[in-house]
Amino acid sequence: MSFQSDIQALQTVLNSEIPLTRALGVRVEAYDHKTLCLTAPLEENINHKSTAFGGSLYSLAVLSGWGLLYLLLKKHGLAGHIVIQHSEIDYIKPVCSDIYAYCQFDSDKQIERFLTMYQRRGVTRVKLNTSIEQDGEVAVKFCGTYVIHSA
Amino acid sequence: MSFQSDIQALQTVLNSEIPLTRALGVRVEAYDHKTLCLTAPLEENINHKSTAFGGSLYSLAVLSGWGLLYLLLKKHGLAGHIVIQHSEIDYIKPVCSDIYAYCQFDSDKQIERFLTMYQRRGVTRVKLNTSIEQDGEVAVKFCGTYVIHSA
Repeated sequence: MSFQSDIQALQTVLNSEIPLTRALGVRVEAYDHKTLCLTAPLEENINHKSTAFGGSLYSLAVLSGWGLLYLLLKKHGLAGHIVIQHSEIDYIKPVCSDIYAYCQFDSDKQIERFLTMYQRRGVTRVKLNTSIEQDGEVAVKFCGTYVIHSA
Repeated sequence: MSFQSDIQALQTVLNSEIPLTRALGVRVEAYDHKTLCLTAPLEENINHKSTAFGGSLYSLAVLSGWGLLYLLLKKHGLAGHIVIQHSEIDYIKPVCSDIYAYCQFDSDKQIERFLTMYQRRGVTRVKLNTSIEQDGEVAVKFCGTYVIHSA
């Protein structure tokens, strides 16, 4: 099963709806229903210490959750607004190369619960975790609470 | 007392050391030793709902804390690296106009404690709060923990 059209659709949405994604150089790297990976070059997001700027790391993390929910709604033919409500981020070690942010649902159960609640009430909340790695170790841990509402 | 040279110095540092600040359109708006205000136009940071993108709001917030510490070190002739370690952000209401992020020290006591610890140990940690308002109400609340180290 190919996810190429989903990847292309999300890339188009990100670039057209959030213009800053072009300055960040965000690219949709991989997707498989449960996990989304966004990437961005270090060059556009570098700071004075030749590592990735904390605001860029955060932006990629928050967009990876947004994108994962966007594609989930799309898969199920659902319309909805996805808004970030609260988040926490830990910077554990510097990122010295291109940024890869991985966001995934905890489990199939989380996806089912989300869809059931959303279809029943037209509004729900979901917590998603994103991680950014450096040399095989977690460099950034992000947890975002998103609200999804139909009107 | 004029803070114009501090404002200019920080503007130069932000634009040269973190190139993304140019894409964000960050401008140092005001500073008075205890409070720093950074601003950015909505246009560069807009999303599909004609409000400010969450990643841009975060970036302005995290930079306002960084800038406040940068200028405090500068005032006291201290060198140091300022790194964000952890942060939390609450998006309370949408920001529909240019972004103004205000970061301030809690008290003179917090500043004194910070300087004492840093000069004694060469490394310390400080928690700073930033708020972004919309129509006179808090729209975004940010709390960042920064580590400052001398080597």
